[in-house]
Amino acid sequence: MLENLIQIIRDPERISTSAAVRQQHSQDLTSYHAQHLPDVVIFPKDKEELREIVAYANRIRCPIVPFGLGTSVEGQVVPIQGGISLDFTHMSRILEIRQDDFAVRVEPGVTRLQLNQELKKYGLFFPIDPGVDATLGGMAATNASGCSAVRYGMTREQILGMEAVLADGSFIHTGSLAKKSSAGYNLTGLLAGSEGTLAVFTELTLRVYALPETFLYAKVVFPDLHKVCKAANRMLYRSIQPSKLELVDEYTIQAINAYKQTAYVEKPTLFLELSGWNSTVTAEWERVHEIIRDEGAVEWDHTFDEAFGEQLWDSRRHAALAIAAAAPKKKLMTTDVCVPLSVLPEAVLYAREVMQIEGLQGAILGHIGDGNYHAVFPIDPSLAEEAAKADKINELIVRFALERGGTCTGEHGVGLGKRQYLAEEHGDAVLWMKRIKEVFDPNHILNPGKIF
Amino acid sequence: MLENLIQIIRDPERISTSAAVRQQHSQDLTSYHAQHLPDVVIFPKDKEELREIVAYANRIRCPIVPFGLGTSVEGQVVPIQGGISLDFTHMSRILEIRQDDFAVRVEPGVTRLQLNQELKKYGLFFPIDPGVDATLGGMAATNASGCSAVRYGMTREQILGMEAVLADGSFIHTGSLAKKSSAGYNLTGLLAGSEGTLAVFTELTLRVYALPETFLYAKVVFPDLHKVCKAANRMLYRSIQPSKLELVDEYTIQAINAYKQTAYVEKPTLFLELSGWNSTVTAEWERVHEIIRDEGAVEWDHTFDEAFGEQLWDSRRHAALAIAAAAPKKKLMTTDVCVPLSVLPEAVLYAREVMQIEGLQGAILGHIGDGNYHAVFPIDPSLAEEAAKADKINELIVRFALERGGTCTGEHGVGLGKRQYLAEEHGDAVLWMKRIKEVFDPNHILNPGKIF
Repeated sequence: MLENLIQIIRDPERISTSAAVRQQHSQDLTSYHAQHLPDVVIFPKDKEELREIVAYANRIRCPIVPFGLGTSVEGQVVPIQGGISLDFTHMSRILEIRQDDFAVRVEPGVTRLQLNQELKKYGLFFPIDPGVDATLGGMAATNASGCSAVRYGMTREQILGMEAVLADGSFIHTGSLAKKSSAGYNLTGLLAGSEGTLAVFTELTLRVYALPETFLYAKVVFPDLHKVCKAANRMLYRSIQPSKLELVDEYTIQAINAYKQTAYVEKPTLFLELSGWNSTVTAEWERVHEIIRDEGAVEWDHTFDEAFGEQLWDSRRHAALAIAAAAPKKKLMTTDVCVPLSVLPEAVLYAREVMQIEGLQGAILGHIGDGNYHAVFPIDPSLAEEAAKADKINELIVRFALERGGTCTGEHGVGLGKRQYLAEEHGDAVLWMKRIKEVFDPNHILNPGKIF
Repeated sequence: MLENLIQIIRDPERISTSAAVRQQHSQDLTSYHAQHLPDVVIFPKDKEELREIVAYANRIRCPIVPFGLGTSVEGQVVPIQGGISLDFTHMSRILEIRQDDFAVRVEPGVTRLQLNQELKKYGLFFPIDPGVDATLGGMAATNASGCSAVRYGMTREQILGMEAVLADGSFIHTGSLAKKSSAGYNLTGLLAGSEGTLAVFTELTLRVYALPETFLYAKVVFPDLHKVCKAANRMLYRSIQPSKLELVDEYTIQAINAYKQTAYVEKPTLFLELSGWNSTVTAEWERVHEIIRDEGAVEWDHTFDEAFGEQLWDSRRHAALAIAAAAPKKKLMTTDVCVPLSVLPEAVLYAREVMQIEGLQGAILGHIGDGNYHAVFPIDPSLAEEAAKADKINELIVRFALERGGTCTGEHGVGLGKRQYLAEEHGDAVLWMKRIKEVFDPNHILNPGKIF
């Protein structure tokens, strides 16, 4: 097999069986999922080479697992059946920036920060922000979203078109450069979120947006969780469109204070960002101010000061690490349910309750405008008891969400961690997903064992 | 067959073979596509009855063609192989309004105006506005959009979940009540826009939005088309989010003046709507005002006056009828390409040019924020020469769009009229669409002959 792959790659630098490289491609960066080594790691230089690798792998029935930066959290990059880990490091070119079309064409290895760095020169940006940096291919594969989804939606909704290699080694082109289309079945939206199980992306055409001129940052402290949610809901009613709207509960604030030496009031808090230009943002803040006063906010800071904003979002991003810091040797388990907006307060309180019952301390972070929240806690997967507790917490939180019309994963994808809940959430629809999988990947070489 | 159907329906009122009723279900309301009579028209009373009909039709290999209000424009409702026309008149119940979740559950026969009438009481609305009233099932089937897509997107993006009957007579449930999900393949987005060829919808869960408090309407006259497009593009750059942003060219204004006895200046004009609340909308208008002055707008009216707004959008909606009025006996052909934003000006000028060359007078209407525009012209399909001219115009306009990265249909769907362009637009991807069709409808009973 290696012989044949070397024939295809013709560059020893871009194919590796070293223990270190295989190790690096054996698991998510931070998640609790067990590692598994790939047999070989390949760094394709372009889509034609990638196509040849997939075609060859299909002939010999060898698993292919795409790898971006390894920031997935449900084990999407773990080669549980070995085979080839496909690293996109060398396929990270920004192919075209179409300023007047608000569109870009990129290779899947481009990261969102790399893209935004470049887009800045054009007064544009790609809004999806899952917190960490990640490759756009990986974000498309898991349909990632994050803090800005409340305004801009999910990654899937940013993808105008794709080029991908199918299991049979053929290219497929979906979508177009047009912002809208009703031309046939929505293959773009089907491949987006398929977690590498239907195709391997080779090019993405993405929507980009005008970079807002002004950002207003606010931290609003509330007496209790219900008030935070009520205030957020009222903002949506008043047609306020925050670019970020995040719930951070009091225990998480404690962890942040300990980790970042901040002195945030340790109560349920809303982290808010408004963006646009001065006059509109100011007008929006007036309206927000009314609402939070009305809902009994204890105290609030708001400012145009970027340093304040950076600290605010930096502490939001590090909340999980703050929790992890308390237990350096452990791995993180993160729940990712998304519930109807009205259910969020009780869902978060329930999550906090089950964590306390199980005696695991964790952070709770909520994309409050979407009903999507994370309970994040450090565990040592090698300790059977701890792993069992974590699984139980996860299961209770997921079941609570599903019973109320929610979903088991709002933005992380199914990967390995949510497979057991897919049928519970979708029932017979899962059979039809599997039939689609059979059509696209009859030999099960594309990220086998993920989703199903 | 009729015997068996009567056994299922058990209500002579809801099954008809009368010439008049079959006639009424034989074609789109206004489009040029040739009519074809269904053998029978059935008005199912609920999803269980609908399920039985589909299961029976599948057993006897009888075509099923869903029918909402017949406002489709590419022949989606024409039963070109006869069979059963499935009329949703009795499946038009609003099942649930979840105010705090910004979500509703409806049967497919509910129309957008019916829904908005009800939502108004809750301070909510469903934003997608294809112009005419239409059933939400039909809008989901064609992935309709229209004037407000520039802000809210397409119908597909409003669908949180679905219940549908598959060809085998089983129910499928997709999505959830959550605003976001990454749980498995996006079947909701696959069925949306499938034009009745993959499943028959029985229930839709839709996103709804806070009803804006204030609307500002503006009509801005420009010296030429390029200036209109430039101004529109600059608005998007300045993070202005109009709720409607429409281009109406000078010939169309002429037709409107003649038809509505208006006295609009007969030059390329921008029809604009801003919405939100006073302070933000006023701030947005200041910015818009700067831009249009800058781009050499000849004159402009702007007002909060609803009467003005109603007249403005009424004339926009009637533009096609204004064109049709000149030729009462004729049918309308409408092109529907969507091009990259930067291509829109030349695309519109090209469309006007080819219409003039072919000697057909028509309207040109552009969803300028999306790059989607319509050339609408009345033809008599029974006159071979006129039909040939219309086909030629359509073909030239579509080819122009495809050569520049656009799509043959931005919002009307493929139906019968765009089938010939699907392969040209998507290449081999069409084979994969067909394979998906084979999985869901192996006997080809669901709206046969549409899309492919």
